[in-house]
Formats: sequence, structure tokens, C-alpha cells
Amino acid sequence: MIYVTRREVFSAAHRLYNPRLSDEENEKLFGKCSNPNWHGHNYVLEVVVKGEIDSLTGYVIDLKELKRIIRENIIEKLDHKNLNLDVDFLKGKIPSGENLVVAIWNQLEGKITNGKLHAIKLFETENNYFEYRGEEN
Amino acid sequence: MIYVTRREVFSAAHRLYNPRLSDEENEKLFGKCSNPNWHGHNYVLEVVVKGEIDSLTGYVIDLKELKRIIRENIIEKLDHKNLNLDVDFLKGKIPSGENLVVAIWNQLEGKITNGKLHAIKLFETENNYFEYRGEEN
Amino acid sequence: MIYVTRREVFSAAHRLYNPRLSDEENEKLFGKCSNPNWHGHNYVLEVVVKGEIDSLTGYVIDLKELKRIIRENIIEKLDHKNLNLDVDFLKGKIPSGENLVVAIWNQLEGKITNGKLHAIKLFETENNYFEYRGEEN
Amino acid sequence: MIYVTRREVFSAAHRLYNPRLSDEENEKLFGKCSNPNWHGHNYVLEVVVKGEIDSLTGYVIDLKELKRIIRENIIEKLDHKNLNLDVDFLKGKIPSGENLVVAIWNQLEGKITNGKLHAIKLFETENNYFEYRGEEN
Amino acid sequence: MIYVTRREVFSAAHRLYNPRLSDEENEKLFGKCSNPNWHGHNYVLEVVVKGEIDSLTGYVIDLKELKRIIRENIIEKLDHKNLNLDVDFLKGKIPSGENLVVAIWNQLEGKITNGKLHAIKLFETENNYFEYRGEEN
Amino acid sequence: MIYVTRREVFSAAHRLYNPRLSDEENEKLFGKCSNPNWHGHNYVLEVVVKGEIDSLTGYVIDLKELKRIIRENIIEKLDHKNLNLDVDFLKGKIPSGENLVVAIWNQLEGKITNGKLHAIKLFETENNYFEYRGEEN
Repeated sequence: MIYVTRREVFSAAHRLYNPRLSDEENEKLFGKCSNPNWHGHNYVLEVVVKGEIDSLTGYVIDLKELKRIIRENIIEKLDHKNLNLDVDFLKGKIPSGENLVVAIWNQLEGKITNGKLHAIKLFETENNYFEYRGEEN
Repeated sequence: MIYVTRREVFSAAHRLYNPRLSDEENEKLFGKCSNPNWHGHNYVLEVVVKGEIDSLTGYVIDLKELKRIIRENIIEKLDHKNLNLDVDFLKGKIPSGENLVVAIWNQLEGKITNGKLHAIKLFETENNYFEYRGEEN
Repeated sequence: MIYVTRREVFSAAHRLYNPRLSDEENEKLFGKCSNPNWHGHNYVLEVVVKGEIDSLTGYVIDLKELKRIIRENIIEKLDHKNLNLDVDFLKGKIPSGENLVVAIWNQLEGKITNGKLHAIKLFETENNYFEYRGEEN
Repeated sequence: MIYVTRREVFSAAHRLYNPRLSDEENEKLFGKCSNPNWHGHNYVLEVVVKGEIDSLTGYVIDLKELKRIIRENIIEKLDHKNLNLDVDFLKGKIPSGENLVVAIWNQLEGKITNGKLHAIKLFETENNYFEYRGEEN
Repeated sequence: MIYVTRREVFSAAHRLYNPRLSDEENEKLFGKCSNPNWHGHNYVLEVVVKGEIDSLTGYVIDLKELKRIIRENIIEKLDHKNLNLDVDFLKGKIPSGENLVVAIWNQLEGKITNGKLHAIKLFETENNYFEYRGEEN
Repeated sequence: MIYVTRREVFSAAHRLYNPRLSDEENEKLFGKCSNPNWHGHNYVLEVVVKGEIDSLTGYVIDLKELKRIIRENIIEKLDHKNLNLDVDFLKGKIPSGENLVVAIWNQLEGKITNGKLHAIKLFETENNYFEYRGEEN
């Protein structure tokens, strides 16, 4: 079993805000991360696929194909967007790093047919990052 | 002459938008960078001070002091903020990297009294960065 | 299950030295790492916590809280310190990267109450790093 | 159980090419990665060894020893070489990242006697990397 | 005057070889860098443009335009290529980092019409890089 | 004129301490950086040499030669050493980043005979760095 990783970047705005709570409660829970005028990040996304090596190509998955899948399904939908307002598959979710890695996993899982999706890692800043390996792990 | 650099980071939202132009013109000029719902970045700021070494301390400027000056005057005003809406010293400016480095220079120039401000560098992403060294350069 | 990581840095002095051995044996075992006048590093510490997402916040653990726990229990005790002389929880231990990750794990394990400590990673240099995931792993 | 990692770098040329296929088929499968005049990379290699801490040294494995093993068995054979033409242990293999991590594992596995080889990670570019943890994983 | 930098990456093969010298002399001058079977690098290119800020856009130069100019004139001609064999504007040149920065400068200088080309920086490895600022500097 | 840069790393211990002052004054001036038990850093050193390209080699200076000069004159004397106690050319100097870049310049200036020493850059941490370009600049 080999683990193959592709790294992509995107820039987006968000705020941490739970619409079930009052503004005061949001401010108390999330502090400056809840600024109503938004803030943003350069996110670094790593997608890890595992599988056996195809003897014809030496590949688990063609990384040009993995790059295309990530760009079409994730980067084009998140880059230079507002994660609270602009993204269909994040509707109704607080755009924390934790919720993002699960949502990105769910977007990509069915699209990867060579190899199997193993992990989603997301760096929100150089000091904070998040990883999800699917429900069974 | 020694050049001393302090690096700080902040996360902010912005959009590129010129209020003197129509929405169509802004969209044409700035593309996805003009998304009305904002996007954002993890900015990396480098402040370069030049000066002679003080023989008592071995310092040009105490970097703890430079850090305090940058945090009070720049980071506290920009971190987790909207650069179009929330920042007094950016009012009326398109928050491009170019305008940001000049505005940050103008904020800091009078505050640095040990040594002399030499350059402001600002990384908007890992691929794009900006530098300003004052009017004479 | 989500894995959340917080990165912090600290600078410290140490030497590799086993007090049960002679100076010659220490020199032979550890070479220049045993310099009696000390040497030092900028350590990069990553603390990984795993847990389920709290639907109220979208968090496994509030990273501001995790940052506070790491700073109070680890960074304040190790930053700008001598790891052989100054640190209560390292007393009697050779301050190798291996012993450091175990000692940091033991310091943090009981302090993390949202989620569960999953791993401690410590970069001693850009080329050498260490990881510990607790006794069972 | 502690995981100890040593990072080394090497520069090499390669092309993706399957000698069982025609030039047209290679071009179709591998695109620009199949350029007959070669291209190349700065590879970053990470070797992860796991084991218990030796109480005499505080080490799982002496990193100077691990560095020597990697340099003698891998770096001297791959650095400034052509991975399709110059390397005995890659003969007959398409030098994809996937095949490289397996081949490097096989070269190193028997050489590590303090601790046990746990993983080989190989960064081909800043965006693409590969990991292998042996057959049983 | 503002300095704007765009970073791009490419992977290429080369060897250091002076066709006016014998193979023995090349081997003596260049050592392993002269391997006749080639080796290669992931090059990191930084292009620095200086100019005044356009008040309509807040830009010195639109970085999407600078990216397009670099990709069309440099990256498409160098990425996954052999620098000794495949590149028209390097014909007859030893592809050292020094010669590369001058050749890339000459390719780009006439193409940049907003602002003025200020510097070309090229990282051959993480430890070696080269800079050229034009003949007058 | 081309600028060629070689990067090297070393690990060392130091404390900021002026022997002409009392312990209380040192503590007040330097804070935790004055810890009498030392602390330390992984320093990153960049040495910049400028010159014309030699048409025989395509080099300003052979980077293997520059690496050898830096290792013999700087790295062997600073790596795994105490900058206050162990280094002849730092005797009597407070080992601040500022004093270090000047001292390293003075060590290297006469040793570089192909090209001319242009700058010394020293990163003390990822957030603090220092540069010196000789007396005339």
C-alpha cells in the first residue's frame, strides 16, 4: 500500500458564527474569529490517496488526474470565495477547520476511483491544521 | 549599517474594488479578486530597520520593542479584520498589496526611534509579495 | 474522528550527557552534541488532539485554549531555558528529542479535556524530528 | 514506541517511460513527464524509524548513524544521477515516486538494526509526495 | 517605487558541461554536476518588477498578467525540459544558475510593459540561489 | 553583476550578557535572553557573493568552494558551540545577531577570492533575522 499526496492552495474569507446563537454568544465563543465583517486565510489543502501500484504506469493514481479532481471539485468552489455564503456544500455549517476537512472529504470521496481516499489535511495558518481520515478511523 | 528584520503574521479579509468604477468594471479589472462576498489571506509581514549597533546591548533595536511596535500599530488593527471596512488608515484605499505596504510604512515610520525604517515586505500568498522602501528609493 | 494540530516554537540550550558515564564515554557516545559549554536549538513543537466535532462550535477543541495550555505548561517552562538544568519535569533525563517528546506528552496528557491527546511531534532541526503517540501505540 | 525521522535531499534526473510500450503510448500516458531528453527534481527524503528509547543514550537510534546509513545506501547512489540509467536497484523500474519509495524501503530495511524502519516519505515537488510503510501496512 | 514579486516553479534536467573542454576537464571542473546521464532540479523562480502604483487599480502590474508573461515565456519553455538540449534561448550556454538568471532576464525584459523588470532570483536547491538585476547594477 | 548565495545551518548556545553591567542590569536589558544557564538556536546563515560570470565555467564562484570556505571558517567554529565561550573571533562581543553578522563578515571577507563578499544574512529564529553588507553600505 502506497500513500500519494497532492497539495493545493486556496484563499477564502470566513467567520466563525453559529446562527442558532445570539451575536453576544458568538462573540463570547469565537472572539475575533467572529468579526461580522469577515476575515480570511490562505488555506493549504493536502489530499492523500492510498492504493497499489499499477505496473503499467508505476502510479497509484495519475497526479495530474488527482490535481484535476481537486481543482474542479474543491479549489474552483472555494478559492476567492466566502465560506459562509458562497459554497453550496458548506451551507448550514460553521466553517471551522474541522467542518471543512469533513466537507472536503465528502466532496472528494466518490470522485477518486484509482486508489482510495485516505486523508484530508487542511492548514488554516502555519500554526493550525486539521486532518480527517473518514468515519471508520 | 546593519539591517534587522522582524516577521509577523495576520489573517484578514479583503476584496479588490474601486468605488469610482461600476461593478462590471471592477469585475473586469479584478476578476475573482473582486468577489463582493470577500475573500482573505494569511499575510506575512516583514519590517526591516537599519542602524548602527549600540555597544551597550549589541542591538540596533531591541526586537522585543520592534515586535511590540508592530503588534500595537499593525497586527492589532489588521488581524481578523476586513481591510476594506475595518481599518482607519486604509479608508479610501483599494487594499492591494502595493497600497498595503505603503500604508503600513506610513503607520510605522514615526514610531521607530532606534534605527530607521528601511523596508516593508508583505507576502499575500506564497507566490506574491510586495516591498516598499519609502519615497526616496 | 478529527485530528487538530497546534504548532508552537521555543528556543533552548541543552547537551547530551549521561551523568552515569565518564566525560570520555559521553564524548564518545554523543560527540559534539556533548559539548560541556552547551549548544541549542529552535524547537518546533506540534501537539495533535483528536476528538469529535462539537456541533455548537464546529470545534474539537478551541485552538485558543489549546494554545494557552501548551504555552502555560510547555513553552513558558522551556523557552530560553537550559533543558539539562532549568526544567523540573526533565530532571534526571538526557534531553534527547526522544525523551523530550515523552516528557512533553506526560505534561500535557492530563491537561487536555476537550478531545484526547493523540501525538507530540518535535522538530529539533529542519532535518531531525521525533514523534510519540502514548504508551499503547 | 517513538518515531524518529531523518530528512535528506538529493537532485536527480528521470523520465517516466515504460519500455514495454511504444513512444506514442508513453507520451499519451505520461505527457511532459516522458520528455526523452529527461527532466529532474530536488527530492526530499524522510526516513522514519520506530523503537524504544535506550536508557543509556536517550536515543532510539543515533541520528548520526541513521544519516550515515541513508547517505551511503541512498544519497550517494541517487544524488546527481539519472534514475532510469545510473542506479542498480532501480533497474527495470519506472522511476515514479511510488516505485522510488518502495525501492528505497527495500534498500534500507536490512540496514537499520537499532529500531525498525517504519516509513519512507519522498517529496518529488513541493506539491507531490509519496509514502510507503512496508508490505504489512 | 514599489517592488512586486511573482514566484513560479519548474522542474528540469541539466548537466554542467563546457563543449570547448574535454570530458576529463569537465569532470575535473564540475564533478558530479557533470554526470553525462544528467541530473535535475525543482527550480524556484522569482521575478521582481518595480514601478509606481496605478491609482485606478492599486496595482504596479496585475499579478495575473505577470504570471501569464512568466508562464508563456519561461515556464512553458523550461518545465520538464532538458536545459542543455531543449531550450532555444539557452543554446550554447552552460546552464549554470548564473547563466540561467541572465538568460531569463533577457527573455522577460522586453515583455514587461507595466513597471520595469528589477530582478530575477532563481533557487536551484534550498541551499543555492542566484540573482541578477540587469547590466547597470 | 550576479549575486550568488549559499545557505548553511548551525546550532549553538548563547546568552545576551554585557560583562560591563551587573546581573540586574543585564536581566533588565535582555530579559529571558540573558538566562545564565544559556539558551540556543538553529541559526540559518546565507552568504552572498557578487561577481562577473567566468565564461569557462558559467560560475561566479564554484558553490562547492564557497560551501567549503563557509564550513571551514564558520560552521566548524560555531556549530554545537557556545557563542559566548567557545569561539575565538567572538571573544569580548555580546553574541547578538547584529554582532554575529559583522563578525562572520570579517571572518569571510579575506577568504573569498572569486567574486566579492556582498552580504551576510543570519536568521536567529523564523521571525528574526539580520543582514550586513560591509562598512561602505
